[in-house]
Amino acid sequence: MNEDAVFARVFESFFRQGLMATLGAVLDHASPGRIVIGLPSSPAITQQHGFGHAGAIASILDSACGYAALTLMPKGKAVLTSEFKINLLAPAAGERFEAEGRIIRAGKRQHVAMGEAFAIRNGLRKSVAVMLATLVVVDGEGGLSN
Amino acid sequence: MNEDAVFARVFESFFRQGLMATLGAVLDHASPGRIVIGLPSSPAITQQHGFGHAGAIASILDSACGYAALTLMPKGKAVLTSEFKINLLAPAAGERFEAEGRIIRAGKRQHVAMGEAFAIRNGLRKSVAVMLATLVVVDGEGGLSN
Amino acid sequence: MNEDAVFARVFESFFRQGLMATLGAVLDHASPGRIVIGLPSSPAITQQHGFGHAGAIASILDSACGYAALTLMPKGKAVLTSEFKINLLAPAAGERFEAEGRIIRAGKRQHVAMGEAFAIRNGLRKSVAVMLATLVVVDGEGGLSN
Amino acid sequence: MNEDAVFARVFESFFRQGLMATLGAVLDHASPGRIVIGLPSSPAITQQHGFGHAGAIASILDSACGYAALTLMPKGKAVLTSEFKINLLAPAAGERFEAEGRIIRAGKRQHVAMGEAFAIRNGLRKSVAVMLATLVVVDGEGGLSN
Repeated sequence: MNEDAVFARVFESFFRQGLMATLGAVLDHASPGRIVIGLPSSPAITQQHGFGHAGAIASILDSACGYAALTLMPKGKAVLTSEFKINLLAPAAGERFEAEGRIIRAGKRQHVAMGEAFAIRNGLRKSVAVMLATLVVVDGEGGLSN
Repeated sequence: MNEDAVFARVFESFFRQGLMATLGAVLDHASPGRIVIGLPSSPAITQQHGFGHAGAIASILDSACGYAALTLMPKGKAVLTSEFKINLLAPAAGERFEAEGRIIRAGKRQHVAMGEAFAIRNGLRKSVAVMLATLVVVDGEGGLSN
Repeated sequence: MNEDAVFARVFESFFRQGLMATLGAVLDHASPGRIVIGLPSSPAITQQHGFGHAGAIASILDSACGYAALTLMPKGKAVLTSEFKINLLAPAAGERFEAEGRIIRAGKRQHVAMGEAFAIRNGLRKSVAVMLATLVVVDGEGGLSN
Repeated sequence: MNEDAVFARVFESFFRQGLMATLGAVLDHASPGRIVIGLPSSPAITQQHGFGHAGAIASILDSACGYAALTLMPKGKAVLTSEFKINLLAPAAGERFEAEGRIIRAGKRQHVAMGEAFAIRNGLRKSVAVMLATLVVVDGEGGLSN
C-alpha cells in the first residue's frame, strides 16, 4: 500500500473511535509501522492540577500503538490491544500533545510497539511519557476488522 | 479521618479532573486505601467497534489507583502517578464500567496499587482489565497537593 | 487431568529449565491454573546488599506464571512468555522465597497470569513482589511443547 | 567523574551481586547513564527448550538499568529497583547475550531506564527483549549505598 492508502485505512477506523473525538485528538501521520496522533491541550483533558491527565496521554498512545500495528496487517486481519505499560516522565504541560507509536517487532501472533508522548510548549517539544504495548493479531471477521 | 472526610478530600480533587467530567465518570466510593470510580457506557468513550476504549478504562483505573493512594497521605503530602501497566482481559462491553483501585503497599517514597475494571451488563459484573500502578509521594506545595 | 498428572507434566518441563537448577529452585505445587515454586535463600542469588536479586525473584515468578498457563493447555499446545511486569514491594530478605502464579484469564490466543512472591523469615511470610504476565498459546511442535 | 571512576564504582557493586556471578554475567561497559552487561550462553541459564530463560535475560537487564542509574547518583545516594516491565521479542538463541541499560529520565526522586537485550549468534546481533524500569533514589546509609 502507498502512504495515502495506509492513512485512509487508519483514518477510517480512527474516525469511529468515539473517545478520540471526545478528547479532541486528530490523526497527524500514518505510514507503515508508524502513527502520530495530536491532542490540543484543553480543560477537557486535565487532571486536578491542570496538566494533561495520564489517562488522556495513555489513550492517544494506545491508539497510536494499535494503529501502528494495523498499518502492517494484511487485509482481513486486525489487532487488539493486549496490554500496555506507560512511564510518565514529566508533567504533561503544553499547548499540544503528540503521541507517536512505532512497531518494534512484527510477529505472526502479536506485534510489540513502542510509544512516546511529547508536550509542545512555546515551540519546544519535550518527552513526557514512554509506552511499551502488545497488540494481538486477530482475524477481522465479526466487526473486529480494523 | 472518618469515611466522610476521606470521601470529601478525594471528591474535592476528583471534581477538578477535567477528564473525569469529559468521560462522564463519577466517584462511587472512597475509603482508606480503596476507591471505586463508575463510568456509564456511551458513544463518547468507544473504540472503533463500539466497546469501551482501553484508554477510557485506563483513565478511570489510573484515577482510582491514584486516589486510593491519596486517601493514605497525611496532610501536606500528595501523590503523582509514576507508571502503570494494564492488561485487557475482555472487550469492555456493558452499560456501565467500574474501576477499583486498592493500595497493596504503602511506602515512605511510593505506594503500589492494584486496579481492576469491571463491565456491568444485564446485571452481570465481569472483570475486563487489571492494573498495577506506582504512585510517588510528593510534598503538597506548589499547587500539587491533592 | 488429575493433580498428579498435572504435576508430572509441569515437572517434566521444569526439570529441563537449567536456570531453575542453577538458582536452586524447586517445584512446590502444581494444580490446574496454579503453580508454586520455592527458592532457598543463598549467596548465589543475591544483589549487592545481600537480599534476593530482583532478577532471581522475577525468574521464579516468570516460571510460576508460565507453568500455571501450561497446566491449562490441551495436549499439543504450549505457552511462551510474551511479557511481564513486576513491582518490588519490599527487600527480598528471608531464608526462603516462594513464587505463586495464578491464571486470571485463559483465552484462545493468550493467558494472563498474576504472580506474587513471598519471603519467609522467622516463620513469617511477607509479600515482596507482584507480577502481571502475558503468555502466548502456541502449537507444541518443533520442540516447543511444554 | 571520568569513565574509569564510573566503571570502578559500578564494578565494586556488581562484583558483590552473587546472582551475576552465578549466571556468569560480566560488566562490559559503564559510562554516565549507560551500562552493558554480557552473559555467555550456557546450560546454566536455559529454559526448557534450551533458549536463554526470560528470567536470566530480565536479570541482566535489571542490573544494567539499575547501574545505569547509579552512574548518575552523587556520593551518598543509591538506587533501588521499584519495578520493571519486559517484552520478549524473540527466543534468546545465541552464543552470548548482551543487556544495555540507558537512563531516559533522571529525576530527584526516581530515574527511568530503558533496556534492550541482544543475542549474538554467528556474528549477528539481534534484539530479543526490551525493558522499561523505574529506579528509586534512596539515601545510601545503612548498607544500601551502591
